Amino acid sequence: MVDRHEFIKSLISPNNSKIVLLVMDGIGDIPDESGLTPLQRANTPNLDAIARESELGQSIPVLPGITPGSGPGHLGIFGYDPIKYQIGRGILEALGSNVEVGPKDVVARGNFATIKDGIVIDRRAGRPSSEESAKIVELLNEKITKIEDVEIRFFPGKEHRFVLKLTGEGLGDNLEDADPQKEGKPIKYTSALSSDSEKTAKIINILLDKIKEVLKEESRMNFALVRGFSKHPHLPQFGEVFKLKAAAVAVYPMYKGIAKLVGMDVVSTGQTVEEEFDTVAKLWKEYDFFYIHVKKTDSYGEDGNYDSKVKVIEEVDSVLPKLLSLKPDVLIVTGDHSTPCLMKSHSFHPVPVMIKAKFVRRGLSDRFNEYECARGTLGTIKAVDIMTLALAYAGRLKKFGA
Amino acid sequence: MVDRHEFIKSLISPNNSKIVLLVMDGIGDIPDESGLTPLQRANTPNLDAIARESELGQSIPVLPGITPGSGPGHLGIFGYDPIKYQIGRGILEALGSNVEVGPKDVVARGNFATIKDGIVIDRRAGRPSSEESAKIVELLNEKITKIEDVEIRFFPGKEHRFVLKLTGEGLGDNLEDADPQKEGKPIKYTSALSSDSEKTAKIINILLDKIKEVLKEESRMNFALVRGFSKHPHLPQFGEVFKLKAAAVAVYPMYKGIAKLVGMDVVSTGQTVEEEFDTVAKLWKEYDFFYIHVKKTDSYGEDGNYDSKVKVIEEVDSVLPKLLSLKPDVLIVTGDHSTPCLMKSHSFHPVPVMIKAKFVRRGLSDRFNEYECARGTLGTIKAVDIMTLALAYAGRLKKFGA
Repeated sequence: MVDRHEFIKSLISPNNSKIVLLVMDGIGDIPDESGLTPLQRANTPNLDAIARESELGQSIPVLPGITPGSGPGHLGIFGYDPIKYQIGRGILEALGSNVEVGPKDVVARGNFATIKDGIVIDRRAGRPSSEESAKIVELLNEKITKIEDVEIRFFPGKEHRFVLKLTGEGLGDNLEDADPQKEGKPIKYTSALSSDSEKTAKIINILLDKIKEVLKEESRMNFALVRGFSKHPHLPQFGEVFKLKAAAVAVYPMYKGIAKLVGMDVVSTGQTVEEEFDTVAKLWKEYDFFYIHVKKTDSYGEDGNYDSKVKVIEEVDSVLPKLLSLKPDVLIVTGDHSTPCLMKSHSFHPVPVMIKAKFVRRGLSDRFNEYECARGTLGTIKAVDIMTLALAYAGRLKKFGA
Repeated sequence: MVDRHEFIKSLISPNNSKIVLLVMDGIGDIPDESGLTPLQRANTPNLDAIARESELGQSIPVLPGITPGSGPGHLGIFGYDPIKYQIGRGILEALGSNVEVGPKDVVARGNFATIKDGIVIDRRAGRPSSEESAKIVELLNEKITKIEDVEIRFFPGKEHRFVLKLTGEGLGDNLEDADPQKEGKPIKYTSALSSDSEKTAKIINILLDKIKEVLKEESRMNFALVRGFSKHPHLPQFGEVFKLKAAAVAVYPMYKGIAKLVGMDVVSTGQTVEEEFDTVAKLWKEYDFFYIHVKKTDSYGEDGNYDSKVKVIEEVDSVLPKLLSLKPDVLIVTGDHSTPCLMKSHSFHPVPVMIKAKFVRRGLSDRFNEYECARGTLGTIKAVDIMTLALAYAGRLKKFGA
């Protein structure tokens, strides 16, 4: 079977067009008791105006029924089949914590835990504050720097979480989690699942004993569980596949991390959506493609906070003229997945997509929401098709075949 | 993965039904300044009446965002995955010029070019008229008929174009183009890309020298560039896969050629759509399946001539009663791709599809156009699914599994 990226690459014909991909994280929703979704409820004159000049559709992040995490959700809209390119949780946690991961590194997610007589009695060590656990990370970095020829580094995370990084030759990432998963069970050492990971397993098991030794006087955070071992995945690079010079404008580390993984330039920006749009304006001439990430739509969905989700949508809408004044050749407004307020979590529901460009079947809808998108002219597409459409609307794809 | 054709073949259960596939080339469009597409603008009482008795949908020719040439566009609606079955440009050019291609043949596209001191100074020899270049073709056919045991034939094309055919044993088609692609560069000889094509490469390079010798007194057309070497592709045959005796009713050589490639009988017909329908009527008892090709919708799209595209649609509509009076069991009206007048080219936009048959979810629409099709009961399908639907509506597919 022909590789999707190879196929698209063979048709690329670069030009001077500008493409903007505005990702409102978790934008898709379901109606609450009022019968309306947050997108339907929100007062969005600018999104409505775009809808009138756009084609609408809905996208399936992975497969119907599959709820993606942020990693697969974003890989999809970046044009990478999220089932083909699976990324270890360790690497996502590392990227999310701004940890650089090189080719000789293996990273893993860690929890500080409480053990007693070799039994894990609290997998989260009583949920310490991030400040408390950062002190433990500092202590470990001071006491443990190397095991044999492998460098060891700990990076602080939120609350009980941290990231572990091993750097050295011959480290594989195919090993069992060093985590019993349940409380009341004994400490679990790791073991290699293939011979290329035997060295890593050995180092990790020595490390676990060292951690126990260093933390033996601590009352709560006196041990660590590590899991999700992963190396840097080799993803085809966005710039090479799509021949686009791409800037990622995102506030949160996780999204910067995924953008970095596919080879986008992660540019520095402010904390608000307006500042993100200002960043795009400032860099307008330097890039062909701008990925802009809006986090709060997802956060309020996860909190089940319908009114605040509506408000964030209205805030984005109110600053949209700034983005529109740049006159992108192609503007795509979508999300990486749905996060229904009633579910307080990511979901599998299709995600609204809207594409504004020169050559569109416009005029069907005058609102941007789940229901208008479901009957839109783009139809129901896969998230992975969005990038192909972006290139097509930008005039960057040659005809296939004679 | 199960082969699509093998799967369908295992379910085929022939009957006496008649299927008509009416392909209005490039029918899909986008709205012009008036806000309407040509299909929306056209006065089409007969298509409207069919719409009321049909299911509508839209089809993706290849993948969302991919603009197909006529080859891939037609292969899709004939039920062949256009990415799996890629057809060399040489073979399409040959078929388009009515050149028969057999199993021992390798064909290629040729340009007459102007060279000076071994440098290509005009890749199109100043765009001679088709008459001028036909004379050169005649001269070459007279002077060069055989190299070693390989027969050589030249066929005239439009302006500077011609088709080259080699016939002999042991000829492969995996070789580099003998074309420097840019002016100001030296003549480029070919070389084989695999051992099965070494003989072809050797013959082509001898041929290039002979052409140079024969044309040395010509002022403009004094050399030839050849590229797109291809053999006859081995496509599963339509009649075998779908168990349908199929007639292709088309005016233009390219479409006859593609139909021939998949094994349809190309029947002779007149120049107008009405004459095409008369041909179908005449052959009604002899075939199960009729592919009817209407070219002008695409031509006017390519010209950006919105009003004439509307007129062609109305012309087709006006003679439709002739086709309807045959009472086909399944009538499919669609296109091979969209050709928006504003773009003056093929495009990637989904293509309207309408299926009239006995057992349909009818009654949703009373017009046949892009917007009605986008919300139709068939949904957004792949072009390659249209043939399966045709068979299904014709009652020619058994239940899959118990």
